[in-house]
Amino acid sequence: MKKRVAVVGATGIAGQQFLVALENHPWFEVGLLAASQRSAGKTYAEAIRDPKTGARQWWCQEEPPQKMLSLVVHEASSINLSDIDLVFSAVESGPARELEPLYAATTPVVSAASAFRYEADVPLLIPGLNLDHIHLIDTQRKNRGWQGYIATQPNCTTIGLAITLKPLFDTFGLQTVIMTSMQGLSGAGRSPGVIGLDVVDNIIPFISGEEEKVEKEAQKILGRLSDGAITPADFSVSATCTRVAVLEGHTESVLAVMDKPCSVDDARAAMIAFGQEFSRLGLPSAPKHMIIVHDDPFRPQPRLDRDAEDGMATSAGRFRADSALDNGVKYLLVSHNTKMGAAKGAVLMAEYLYQQGYV
Amino acid sequence: MKKRVAVVGATGIAGQQFLVALENHPWFEVGLLAASQRSAGKTYAEAIRDPKTGARQWWCQEEPPQKMLSLVVHEASSINLSDIDLVFSAVESGPARELEPLYAATTPVVSAASAFRYEADVPLLIPGLNLDHIHLIDTQRKNRGWQGYIATQPNCTTIGLAITLKPLFDTFGLQTVIMTSMQGLSGAGRSPGVIGLDVVDNIIPFISGEEEKVEKEAQKILGRLSDGAITPADFSVSATCTRVAVLEGHTESVLAVMDKPCSVDDARAAMIAFGQEFSRLGLPSAPKHMIIVHDDPFRPQPRLDRDAEDGMATSAGRFRADSALDNGVKYLLVSHNTKMGAAKGAVLMAEYLYQQGYV
Amino acid sequence: MKKRVAVVGATGIAGQQFLVALENHPWFEVGLLAASQRSAGKTYAEAIRDPKTGARQWWCQEEPPQKMLSLVVHEASSINLSDIDLVFSAVESGPARELEPLYAATTPVVSAASAFRYEADVPLLIPGLNLDHIHLIDTQRKNRGWQGYIATQPNCTTIGLAITLKPLFDTFGLQTVIMTSMQGLSGAGRSPGVIGLDVVDNIIPFISGEEEKVEKEAQKILGRLSDGAITPADFSVSATCTRVAVLEGHTESVLAVMDKPCSVDDARAAMIAFGQEFSRLGLPSAPKHMIIVHDDPFRPQPRLDRDAEDGMATSAGRFRADSALDNGVKYLLVSHNTKMGAAKGAVLMAEYLYQQGYV
Amino acid sequence: MKKRVAVVGATGIAGQQFLVALENHPWFEVGLLAASQRSAGKTYAEAIRDPKTGARQWWCQEEPPQKMLSLVVHEASSINLSDIDLVFSAVESGPARELEPLYAATTPVVSAASAFRYEADVPLLIPGLNLDHIHLIDTQRKNRGWQGYIATQPNCTTIGLAITLKPLFDTFGLQTVIMTSMQGLSGAGRSPGVIGLDVVDNIIPFISGEEEKVEKEAQKILGRLSDGAITPADFSVSATCTRVAVLEGHTESVLAVMDKPCSVDDARAAMIAFGQEFSRLGLPSAPKHMIIVHDDPFRPQPRLDRDAEDGMATSAGRFRADSALDNGVKYLLVSHNTKMGAAKGAVLMAEYLYQQGYV
Repeated sequence: MKKRVAVVGATGIAGQQFLVALENHPWFEVGLLAASQRSAGKTYAEAIRDPKTGARQWWCQEEPPQKMLSLVVHEASSINLSDIDLVFSAVESGPARELEPLYAATTPVVSAASAFRYEADVPLLIPGLNLDHIHLIDTQRKNRGWQGYIATQPNCTTIGLAITLKPLFDTFGLQTVIMTSMQGLSGAGRSPGVIGLDVVDNIIPFISGEEEKVEKEAQKILGRLSDGAITPADFSVSATCTRVAVLEGHTESVLAVMDKPCSVDDARAAMIAFGQEFSRLGLPSAPKHMIIVHDDPFRPQPRLDRDAEDGMATSAGRFRADSALDNGVKYLLVSHNTKMGAAKGAVLMAEYLYQQGYV
Repeated sequence: MKKRVAVVGATGIAGQQFLVALENHPWFEVGLLAASQRSAGKTYAEAIRDPKTGARQWWCQEEPPQKMLSLVVHEASSINLSDIDLVFSAVESGPARELEPLYAATTPVVSAASAFRYEADVPLLIPGLNLDHIHLIDTQRKNRGWQGYIATQPNCTTIGLAITLKPLFDTFGLQTVIMTSMQGLSGAGRSPGVIGLDVVDNIIPFISGEEEKVEKEAQKILGRLSDGAITPADFSVSATCTRVAVLEGHTESVLAVMDKPCSVDDARAAMIAFGQEFSRLGLPSAPKHMIIVHDDPFRPQPRLDRDAEDGMATSAGRFRADSALDNGVKYLLVSHNTKMGAAKGAVLMAEYLYQQGYV
Repeated sequence: MKKRVAVVGATGIAGQQFLVALENHPWFEVGLLAASQRSAGKTYAEAIRDPKTGARQWWCQEEPPQKMLSLVVHEASSINLSDIDLVFSAVESGPARELEPLYAATTPVVSAASAFRYEADVPLLIPGLNLDHIHLIDTQRKNRGWQGYIATQPNCTTIGLAITLKPLFDTFGLQTVIMTSMQGLSGAGRSPGVIGLDVVDNIIPFISGEEEKVEKEAQKILGRLSDGAITPADFSVSATCTRVAVLEGHTESVLAVMDKPCSVDDARAAMIAFGQEFSRLGLPSAPKHMIIVHDDPFRPQPRLDRDAEDGMATSAGRFRADSALDNGVKYLLVSHNTKMGAAKGAVLMAEYLYQQGYV
Repeated sequence: MKKRVAVVGATGIAGQQFLVALENHPWFEVGLLAASQRSAGKTYAEAIRDPKTGARQWWCQEEPPQKMLSLVVHEASSINLSDIDLVFSAVESGPARELEPLYAATTPVVSAASAFRYEADVPLLIPGLNLDHIHLIDTQRKNRGWQGYIATQPNCTTIGLAITLKPLFDTFGLQTVIMTSMQGLSGAGRSPGVIGLDVVDNIIPFISGEEEKVEKEAQKILGRLSDGAITPADFSVSATCTRVAVLEGHTESVLAVMDKPCSVDDARAAMIAFGQEFSRLGLPSAPKHMIIVHDDPFRPQPRLDRDAEDGMATSAGRFRADSALDNGVKYLLVSHNTKMGAAKGAVLMAEYLYQQGYV
């Protein structure tokens, strides 16, 4: 029998992506939809119609899952979780801070929001990378007296970076990471996100709060769990985050300075080898390759590579020895910010939690 | 009386930009146009018409200078320079290698091509930055037995970078520079440059040869001239160059690691102060400010800032202390690649050469 | 002595464009700025700063006029017009309906809003086209007992269309006009206008209310004023309005079916000849040519032609005899929607009103 | 046993799209690849590598079919068709004029080129629309003494237009069609197609030869075959074709004036009903619906709708009664120019020819 899951924030764009990622899922079944007061009591089909114009407010390329349309949407602060095994939280950080503890008191919560990411007893997980950190959940439950827990997903810009850093970190050690991102528009959402007048024939050189998140998250994700606590990894990260006229997909120019000598071939080989064990776990949403390495110097490109393995693989290329710093290797990566970087990545995390007995 | 100048490669896009930059110039007058065999013997008006369709092949926003239209175009390899004081060379690197020495035997040549940039006795000049290097011309004349000389302009991506590095270099010393560029389409030209199908909703992660140029040129430009030779500056540069869907203007994300402590305010102040002496020289094409420093974190943006001071000022912003490396300061810059970065910058260089008695 | 004018809605993007269009104006001087309650009592410099981030909310390419920055912004519903000769109204249609009659009781109002455009005694004016309609003001004053009046400007999409139709209408009569527009993003404003996610690699096939405006306005503008009333012109207009990823400038594909035979050369000649009398009036903001006719089949293009004569000329090209309808001529036009199509066009209208003694 | 087909022009972008459309096809198997002298004798994998850089010249989003990579490419003018049942011709019009008759002497040819489209005995076919025209093949064979034949596909801009006109034509008769297109970049190909510098923030108002093709082709396609000849349909078409910054998909604004009254609901209903019989034929590449009708006024949009039914369905919306012409209905359509409009549409045509015994 499938596990019953709730999606909170189901009418927003992130929530819609969860519904798509969960359609026909072999292990999970959406049994409850929740959103704000404004949608409560309506069917999902009604809730995603603009009350004035009647136009459908659905933002995914895929059609809304048929079964969802007739479900009634509940008010997020008063849902009944008695027959729910897992909550996916797709709300903004503000509401997440209020709502997620309510749910976690009884039920596991997998969250894409940043509200609890930086708390010492909350794991910040990337599937295939640091899933051993799930044991931090035990500490969290003890600390907070919860039957459930909160497990969080990093910022979408961190995800592609951390995935490519992990094999370098494990084999060569990391000293310093310098990264400049060119991020897709979907990362800014639709409320209103980036307006066309600002981004056509242009670059936006600043994304508020983004650089700090990347710098802090990478160290926690690559940190070591011992005695119920995480020691952040001991390397420094310097990020510059920009927005460009690309619809989906974050492109990042990375310089990784390592502790030990690492040739271009070493770096390529480490990335190619990375994640084989994870892909053997048989998780339904897992990519066959965590990282796809390109030799053509014109790759990766966001439009050509963001959808690799349905957006779950990170693409890397242009490996070069750094001309400035010893033990430095440079590369570019493309990562799908709303697939592996958001809902579908969170579903993959939940699959692992389930397999490990945490759901 | 104005100096008479020739423009070689006058029918190409770079040559057209020279004609625009020289229109109504107070010191220079275009007296000779040269191009390939195909255009030779035609009036300029004829030479820029497509022979099949009759459509005008003129690529600048400004109209072609009226006086040019009736000039006859000469074949570049056999022009008579007897009444020409200065040659602007706007040809590709291959032809430049053949043609520029022919001209330099008798006449000063200011070149936007890369053919001679890296030769030890050829100065690589940015106005307001290293114009003392013009004295390398004396060495060059001696070495080569020329009455004229070749003075070259750097790659357009190097120019904005070097301009912002110079005040840091002078005051704090430079150890290492890490740079990722997001370059405008005009830098790739029109033959065919970057096609629309490749760049809409996309980023091209590679520009052949560009990174090597930036790395080598920055060191020569900031080098020291003594005893008739240039010692390259002793810092390392690591560049990653990409192309984005921006029409004009190169945006660069820079991390400069200095020898001495340099706060964000120090870096800003050094850039603001830079170039005041140069702007007092009264050169007609010089900007009032070499660098415009922005405090709004959403600036500089290529569309909003590329045209600052008619494309002759470099705009910088987002100054931050680096989170990874000591004495590191990060910033972004926007530089107009076809104004200060090409023809108009070369004309400004020529203005200085003239003022110093080299024309 | 210059006439003192007020700009209402001065902090919005349309109001900002008025301030730019009025900077250093030889006849008008901005003596009063008004906006909503939120800005009232602040200096203009304060009013255009984001209260949270401190970032400047200024949307024109030109810098804000220096003199404006220290003016205090007044609340729009309670301004004192005793020393104001003319009000420029740059507010949305809703507030315009309330505010403009308040002002018009004592003072002439030139409005870019649609609130009063369709009232029988309110002229809908395009400079150089139907300025004889200003005499409708006399009717309006009589009807409403106002000392001032309201004179309105058409929708930006109507303006380029009506300008090119007028010479055809006058000489050949018009039966039917079929038009499809491809409109620039600036026409949708910034609140939020069209978001980047919707318009990159895309076309938006609908602009709410736009087609009806174009169809109705063209007939009124080309109508005949007699006995203090306008009889709409007797031709039909069919419009399809779309939005494309162009920053500024509306492109329109037009088929005009005329009463009498009109060759392609006739149509071209009529457009070239149009407006010569108007340009001899010496109005400061008037273009030298109302219509610029292109023979190159690749023109007009919005990016290349929108700024012709500082955005005050309409560019037309691709004249062809229609292959379907008798007496039909097809052409494309480009018109600058926020110059001639908005603030600067309204200022030009005011110049004429002043010259004719209506200010 | 599957029919063996050849793809001529296999290395170009159109040929690549044929290989993708034919991968794992249930009825056809690619047995021969042909291209120009330059590729002859190489494996396909070698032939699509840039000889200088080694980079792969493959332009489809899908990967090249594995089986193709090791096939040897033959020179197009000297291929042996003895075991080939059908030739797909994906070459330009010039070579097509030479090559297609060579093949047709012995073998059926399905061609995407325009070379023979307008010859009286060559059918111009759109699947689901005028497949009864295939009997013109009998005339052609008789006229030319060929065992094979040439069957051609219309221009990609004609295809979406003709598909939506057909149900109107059949029920209400057509008098006049006025159409303005906003075409995607892929229609211009890659040699070089439209360059980025020309199309970012812009519209290209002219596509050489396109309007004439649309006007002529629509009449032939909707014409009547009798006594072995086609009488073109008796309505007039007026087309204006432009290019916009959209990657794939042609958007067309259409006004159809009919012989008989046709309400908006009539037009919608006719389009919804259209093609049901065709889709029952069970052709592998056929869409379930020839036309998808949208009620949301913001649809169709090229990015959202071009891929409907894998690019084989035409999407239509914004049905309105025309405000200018009697019996006129307006709508917009989106059609995928490189799926139904090119290779996959040609494969669908071949499926019908096979089913009818013509292969």
